[in-house]
Amino acid sequence: MSDLRPIGVFDSGVGGLTVVKALRELLPNENIFYLGDTARVPYGGKSASTVERYSIEMTDLLVAENVKAVVIACNSASAVALPKLEETLAVPVIGVIKPGAQAALAATRNQHVGVIGTRATIKSGAYERELRALNPQVRVSACACPLLVPLIEEGWLEDELTDRVIARYLGPLVHQGIDTLVLGCTHYPLLVHAISRALPKTVRLVDSARNCAMAVKKLLVQSYLSAPAGNLAGLEIALTDAPDIFLSVARRALQLEIGEVQLREVLHATKL
Amino acid sequence: MSDLRPIGVFDSGVGGLTVVKALRELLPNENIFYLGDTARVPYGGKSASTVERYSIEMTDLLVAENVKAVVIACNSASAVALPKLEETLAVPVIGVIKPGAQAALAATRNQHVGVIGTRATIKSGAYERELRALNPQVRVSACACPLLVPLIEEGWLEDELTDRVIARYLGPLVHQGIDTLVLGCTHYPLLVHAISRALPKTVRLVDSARNCAMAVKKLLVQSYLSAPAGNLAGLEIALTDAPDIFLSVARRALQLEIGEVQLREVLHATKL
Repeated sequence: MSDLRPIGVFDSGVGGLTVVKALRELLPNENIFYLGDTARVPYGGKSASTVERYSIEMTDLLVAENVKAVVIACNSASAVALPKLEETLAVPVIGVIKPGAQAALAATRNQHVGVIGTRATIKSGAYERELRALNPQVRVSACACPLLVPLIEEGWLEDELTDRVIARYLGPLVHQGIDTLVLGCTHYPLLVHAISRALPKTVRLVDSARNCAMAVKKLLVQSYLSAPAGNLAGLEIALTDAPDIFLSVARRALQLEIGEVQLREVLHATKL
Repeated sequence: MSDLRPIGVFDSGVGGLTVVKALRELLPNENIFYLGDTARVPYGGKSASTVERYSIEMTDLLVAENVKAVVIACNSASAVALPKLEETLAVPVIGVIKPGAQAALAATRNQHVGVIGTRATIKSGAYERELRALNPQVRVSACACPLLVPLIEEGWLEDELTDRVIARYLGPLVHQGIDTLVLGCTHYPLLVHAISRALPKTVRLVDSARNCAMAVKKLLVQSYLSAPAGNLAGLEIALTDAPDIFLSVARRALQLEIGEVQLREVLHATKL
């Protein structure tokens, strides 16, 4: 059995394209429909109830595209909206938190894992919960790094100032003795070189994009949802607002073939 | 004649509270209703059509509060939405761009003005247009500074890293010979000390918050809309999402008495 319907991927913006890149490398025959909520980006500083509401709206748009599975390629949305989406969606849904937590536990030797992400992700405690559910002995040190996404959007990927901001965020985690660091935001793989420079060589990096793609592959195989081998897979991209500057950063840094970008409207009815 | 209805003020987030502070100092008898669109902040990186749509929705909410005038305490919204709002609103509307441009022309001696702001504000060219309309001879050097708002939200107001980011943005403007700099974002007054440090002492700073408040005062007097002297003025604050971290920064840095914060919903109906 095989299934040509696309995998639906959504993110608050275009950061989730790091997950798309990992998916295309791992699943070259799968069609992908990517939706970025650039009209309301970022989710990372917003409240849990607002992020949950936005996530449901984005998922509705993906379901309308007849997707066979939904990937939440956004840590903030995975952290707060996954339970609700698992409960309400008719297709399987995969977030980035659980695959990242599993990979971190496989990587750590001293059972002390660091997590970095947006304010919303860190405040939710989602990684901590997932890590402890899998291993109650694990120690977790978490740090919100709200300046990293703006630095990435500015394109300062290889930059001494970015290095210093990262050093300030990561210093305390290193001092506390982590031996593994989860990049808990889909933008962060674009800073992987800068982040590596701020860490002792012994600290292992866990990239949630790559681990999420592996979880998707496993799900498709187990559920008989894979596309046929030899399928000429396509990538469609839609955004809720005009493409922002990060799209050009992502194109350059990810070397992802991105064709025409579509627009999807989220209509608003104000109410008192 | 006097009018007790509140002045309605809106901003993408809570940065417009710098305008509220200036209004309260200048117009201590005026009631103020402040609305911050924290569910969709920031506007500064979004497209003109999306910012215009959001601004209309925020203004509708203010009109429902029976305001006597609308103040757009957001440079990005003023830059792209003011013409549309002037056309459709039944009450007078004032933005931050024109008062800022007038003050800059009053301040400059060499007719060379610098402007800093968000990407949306700078891309719109609104300050440049307004400055040239008032004085066709003026030279304008503009620079988008997308990292400044995140740095303010992080609370790094007196910080060597912030100083270095500012120096990088402002260096070229100083080199080009500006003698006046417009702070074209309502967040920026919170960085006024850091910005001053990056500039030669001869460069004058124009704060759009203060100049906007003076324009509001003039309008109220001319239109017989002022509140009676001796009125015990109140400040009401509503946000579209739970208060974000900047609220505490604003409280501390602006020393503004902020009571309970209300929530106003913007409901969404997704549509393909």
